[in-house]
Amino acid sequence: MCMKETVVKILGKVELEDPIMIEGLPGVGHVGKLVAEHLVEELDVEKIVEIYSPHFPPQVLVKDDFTVHLVKNEIYACKSEDKQDMLIVVGDHQSATNEGHYEISSIILDIAEEYSVKRIYTLGGYVTGQLDEKRTVLGAVNNIDLVEEMKGHGVEFKQNEPAGGIVGVSGLLLGIGELRSMDAVCLMGTTSGYLVDPKSAQAVLEVFSSVLDLQIDAQALEERAKDMERIIAKIVEMEQMQVQTDMGTDEDLRYIG
Amino acid sequence: MCMKETVVKILGKVELEDPIMIEGLPGVGHVGKLVAEHLVEELDVEKIVEIYSPHFPPQVLVKDDFTVHLVKNEIYACKSEDKQDMLIVVGDHQSATNEGHYEISSIILDIAEEYSVKRIYTLGGYVTGQLDEKRTVLGAVNNIDLVEEMKGHGVEFKQNEPAGGIVGVSGLLLGIGELRSMDAVCLMGTTSGYLVDPKSAQAVLEVFSSVLDLQIDAQALEERAKDMERIIAKIVEMEQMQVQTDMGTDEDLRYIG
Amino acid sequence: MCMKETVVKILGKVELEDPIMIEGLPGVGHVGKLVAEHLVEELDVEKIVEIYSPHFPPQVLVKDDFTVHLVKNEIYACKSEDKQDMLIVVGDHQSATNEGHYEISSIILDIAEEYSVKRIYTLGGYVTGQLDEKRTVLGAVNNIDLVEEMKGHGVEFKQNEPAGGIVGVSGLLLGIGELRSMDAVCLMGTTSGYLVDPKSAQAVLEVFSSVLDLQIDAQALEERAKDMERIIAKIVEMEQMQVQTDMGTDEDLRYIG
Amino acid sequence: MCMKETVVKILGKVELEDPIMIEGLPGVGHVGKLVAEHLVEELDVEKIVEIYSPHFPPQVLVKDDFTVHLVKNEIYACKSEDKQDMLIVVGDHQSATNEGHYEISSIILDIAEEYSVKRIYTLGGYVTGQLDEKRTVLGAVNNIDLVEEMKGHGVEFKQNEPAGGIVGVSGLLLGIGELRSMDAVCLMGTTSGYLVDPKSAQAVLEVFSSVLDLQIDAQALEERAKDMERIIAKIVEMEQMQVQTDMGTDEDLRYIG
Repeated sequence: MCMKETVVKILGKVELEDPIMIEGLPGVGHVGKLVAEHLVEELDVEKIVEIYSPHFPPQVLVKDDFTVHLVKNEIYACKSEDKQDMLIVVGDHQSATNEGHYEISSIILDIAEEYSVKRIYTLGGYVTGQLDEKRTVLGAVNNIDLVEEMKGHGVEFKQNEPAGGIVGVSGLLLGIGELRSMDAVCLMGTTSGYLVDPKSAQAVLEVFSSVLDLQIDAQALEERAKDMERIIAKIVEMEQMQVQTDMGTDEDLRYIG
Repeated sequence: MCMKETVVKILGKVELEDPIMIEGLPGVGHVGKLVAEHLVEELDVEKIVEIYSPHFPPQVLVKDDFTVHLVKNEIYACKSEDKQDMLIVVGDHQSATNEGHYEISSIILDIAEEYSVKRIYTLGGYVTGQLDEKRTVLGAVNNIDLVEEMKGHGVEFKQNEPAGGIVGVSGLLLGIGELRSMDAVCLMGTTSGYLVDPKSAQAVLEVFSSVLDLQIDAQALEERAKDMERIIAKIVEMEQMQVQTDMGTDEDLRYIG
Repeated sequence: MCMKETVVKILGKVELEDPIMIEGLPGVGHVGKLVAEHLVEELDVEKIVEIYSPHFPPQVLVKDDFTVHLVKNEIYACKSEDKQDMLIVVGDHQSATNEGHYEISSIILDIAEEYSVKRIYTLGGYVTGQLDEKRTVLGAVNNIDLVEEMKGHGVEFKQNEPAGGIVGVSGLLLGIGELRSMDAVCLMGTTSGYLVDPKSAQAVLEVFSSVLDLQIDAQALEERAKDMERIIAKIVEMEQMQVQTDMGTDEDLRYIG
Repeated sequence: MCMKETVVKILGKVELEDPIMIEGLPGVGHVGKLVAEHLVEELDVEKIVEIYSPHFPPQVLVKDDFTVHLVKNEIYACKSEDKQDMLIVVGDHQSATNEGHYEISSIILDIAEEYSVKRIYTLGGYVTGQLDEKRTVLGAVNNIDLVEEMKGHGVEFKQNEPAGGIVGVSGLLLGIGELRSMDAVCLMGTTSGYLVDPKSAQAVLEVFSSVLDLQIDAQALEERAKDMERIIAKIVEMEQMQVQTDMGTDEDLRYIG
């Protein structure tokens, strides 16, 4: 396997009936990541795709058992007897380049098409800048017909918001999706900007559960957020040490032989 | 549609007689964008081309009706009974990479060639650093024969100005245009550097109307500028909040799993 | 030779028996580079591969004899009568782009495969932020079976450490290696963050000597570190002068004709 | 002409006898650029090649006659009755990307090979950080046989200097040149770091005249440097104004629609 190009590794194929797709990659408040990883943990899923890419940071992460894995995005299939079938997109990182965002989004849409996905939900956070506020869920769609349905599940819609648009895979799945005639909704939990915001994730999960008529226990969400926050805090601490030593980042090393 | 490469979507074909092309993409003072979008609103136009590219920011923008569109550049055709036929290039963004500027400019010139465009006008702003100054229009050309004609319409020319050259598509259409034997003029409205400068846009519009012998109502221009400024102010505010929370930009997220 | 693409120059071919591969490119504390270059100096080696790449900084380095060489990565073969055969990867720089890290790592793994390398050791530093601390060696593996063996040689393992993962070729050889079914271990000497840390290098060398049952004189290591530190100090000094003059980096020159 | 890739425009072909090549692109103190452009002005030359590239900044420069030209690198041929024939490489900019430096250098070497160039001289500046110092010329070579000859013309050689290596085309022509078996020398005028250093350029020109046994009037050099400094000062002033208005650079516009 040569990693000069993005590699899509197909691990299996699951028969799904009219599946939807949910995307929750790292982003503001890690809201989307929290919800999507929670679904992977709580539901009965099977991993079907791994995506590796030179557009991701050149990095491995160390797991609990001291082994590493190359940073990646993953797609899980969830087949259900009586509920909605799903594909769930999670990952360690988003692309580190503009071009990468477009490529990874196109790959995810290819797989959605292959599985005849009927609707895509992308999950993210939305910084309001106000502390201690009640979390709400802001929506954006790529097909106007979806607005009323989403409002029925408590999603709020505001003209031209977010003002800065939606950046990254969560935005591109809607934008490129529209050009490929695939319906998609972005659900953004408002957040006052904590590193990891489990309350915002819970608000998004509630909307999502209502839409799909699912019962998903949200209790583990808070615990999971604490774990994630602990790791991120440690990373930030490490990075600060490295900046102090002036030698920690590859950037600094570029011109030093 | 795979977005690993730039996608040129042809929406239609209009029969035009000896058309000119006008380009007004985002830039200093948003002068070019203001004028070109004003023309699209005021004239009777038909959209003929959409350009999507991985060189644009990986972003969708949210519209008034809560639906999104992928950031893009667009070309409109304006067919007129008794006036000059035109192609108008507008867009949400310019390329975020050097290479992208060259590619997008080449694509625009391909379309200009296909329509046998006889002259290209690129519109932009030019920061003088002086407040409350009367707006004038500075010109640059890629064919010396155009200087006198432009002077006749009130365009000023100054040796080696702008000193830093002209950056982005407005410059490249002249530069690459010359290599492809296509005449092009850049009209730059002086601006003291407001976010959005409708007075400068008006000065450019006046020159342009004189060149083409057009009557274009400039009244809506001021209102349009206010709208644009309001949105940009909101984006800036959002960005500042996100910077404060230290988690808002993709950049910051790169190395946080 | 056109340098638009990475060039792999094969200088020779050595018959090796069940070789291992050691990688020590520039990084935190220059720990890996110090150890790997020490091995190249102390052992009887033959250079078999040079790698040149447009992903490396566009730079030549000046040698003692006033001649220059283009920045590169190199692979040396060490054939031994009674000890372990080895391939040793050293270099002036790591890639300056994300994509480059992935490409260079893939090329190194290609060569490892060609030589039927049975295990890869990547060497690096790990900033603890604590001064005057005893150096220890932290490990990470891409095959859980290797943990116990490494512990037997004094390597420490800690869950989820380094928290920020392992960045660059040292990490990717493990991560991509796993996907290609090649066993690999990363040995990281703890360092308080000196520019060049020979004590940390010595700790790594000790572990490594124990693993391979080698006697390698560590005396020259300290001297070599001093040389390296002197050169790096000079580079940093030069860079500061250039920043002061505001004209030293290519970055600053980009828009000045 | 599509500018997605670098374009090499051959303007003519001149019969040269055992020519040398001189390269003087923008860099520290603009020393190389000053000298090479001076040669183009003072000698009887013919332009034979223009190089355009998406790796250069996306920019046109405005000339004295109000017309623009796309930023480029150029090669001039100088055929002489009784003196050394030459190819002279000049340009508005160096590449803005790492990869571009490698590509442009390879292209220049292709042309050198086509003309059977027997030796390449690359010219640059070298910041010493000391004011009011006598200018000397530091040398580096890619063939040890050249050292003594250069010393004979007053060039100084110092072990491992410049410590940070030689960055950009001036370095790569030596480094890649060596891999292609082409002799090359880099002559660096010491400079205390002025924007444009005509005294340093004069020192380099003297060495160069001695090597080639040429009489070149250096008087115009000072005047040329003043012109260049005036333009650069103006660019810097413009850039500062634009930074103040927070809207001047493309970078700032990236995420503002």
